[in-house]
Amino acid sequence: MDNIDRSNRELTVSGLAQMIDHTRLGVDTTVQEIRVLCEEAAEYEFASVCVPPCYVREAALILNGAPPSVCTVLSFPHGDSCTGAKVKEACLAIENGATEVDMVMAVGLFKSGFYDAVKTDIEQVVQTCEHAALVKVILECILLTDEQKRMACHLARDAGADYVKTSTGYANGGATEQDIALMHSTIGEDLGIKASGGIRTFEEALAMIRAGATRIGASASLAIIQGIENA
Amino acid sequence: MDNIDRSNRELTVSGLAQMIDHTRLGVDTTVQEIRVLCEEAAEYEFASVCVPPCYVREAALILNGAPPSVCTVLSFPHGDSCTGAKVKEACLAIENGATEVDMVMAVGLFKSGFYDAVKTDIEQVVQTCEHAALVKVILECILLTDEQKRMACHLARDAGADYVKTSTGYANGGATEQDIALMHSTIGEDLGIKASGGIRTFEEALAMIRAGATRIGASASLAIIQGIENA
Repeated sequence: MDNIDRSNRELTVSGLAQMIDHTRLGVDTTVQEIRVLCEEAAEYEFASVCVPPCYVREAALILNGAPPSVCTVLSFPHGDSCTGAKVKEACLAIENGATEVDMVMAVGLFKSGFYDAVKTDIEQVVQTCEHAALVKVILECILLTDEQKRMACHLARDAGADYVKTSTGYANGGATEQDIALMHSTIGEDLGIKASGGIRTFEEALAMIRAGATRIGASASLAIIQGIENA
Repeated sequence: MDNIDRSNRELTVSGLAQMIDHTRLGVDTTVQEIRVLCEEAAEYEFASVCVPPCYVREAALILNGAPPSVCTVLSFPHGDSCTGAKVKEACLAIENGATEVDMVMAVGLFKSGFYDAVKTDIEQVVQTCEHAALVKVILECILLTDEQKRMACHLARDAGADYVKTSTGYANGGATEQDIALMHSTIGEDLGIKASGGIRTFEEALAMIRAGATRIGASASLAIIQGIENA
């Protein structure tokens, strides 16, 4: 919680921007859209741009080491690749200039009861990224019971991940305050917590932060930032 | 068109089954569901089971070389992985026992105008799969204009793919007769044509086949097969 004093609820434009992963992950996202995203991210000093793997190199070239990090996704949005494929994706992401990766947990394996395999899957990516990239684990909360969400948080923490993240934005539900609060009560300050999926206004972002989110994933980042001025 | 005499519209249960990829690709698909899928596929002698990458080995063990092939997907459903990651996924799929892979075309790169990159992406997977697995290229037709669909068919053919396929089932639209007819008029009999996404009845499957489809991807395969008896 570097960017907000939760006791007095003060939040600056700059503080909020530094919590936002400015995101464009649509299937048909073009390189032209990625260029605009990077320019916006540099102007507002968002935490990162979150882009499809095939655009990581382009984003890194544009940002050229400037403050917004380059973030990408692994096995997105289904999380059902083999571990070796996720590791390869992580290697390529780092080679191409990413310093943050959001991997989708193997939800199907998790629901099959293969908890060791799910943990190993995360661990292998974490080891690949060590010292090179932050690892966020997307739980896809809408598909889990509360008990499963807690267990998934523990698996991610035990596997060495840096963040847990609520949603891909491609299942039938995104971030909720309830899920953020549950994640926060489960892992405390051990890991970062990223709220993502359906956050379109300043008020929604603020609600997530108050519930415990330390990062916001959004496409509507500009509207969120502009909303702070009217708040 | 091995399984249907299109001139007289005769189609047997067995002939139809041999055109169907019996599919379960949900994010939260469990191993238990994959086992049932494989048993059904073996019983009805479907062309293949189409399963998430993390279940290929399990499916191959269950089917143990019996007629239904094991099919999986690469960079599914977004198609935006780096080529090296798609190649790695293809290698792992083959190692684990897949003999068919359905890769998602890099739709974003295509829409950015990077046609050479899209073709290379397919070519690299085709070369990886040579003599080991059929390659189907998912165009995600709902996101393309008719002209783009034709161009994508040509790219897939020129890159050496075995099939073009309409849809992942995860965009806002699946297979249509119009798209199948367009694909058929574009590539003739050079490649197979797989219709997938939203096909739930025998009548819908038959319409696709009459329009030119040589393979059907469906989760509702049993309903489709049962429908032939009432037709």
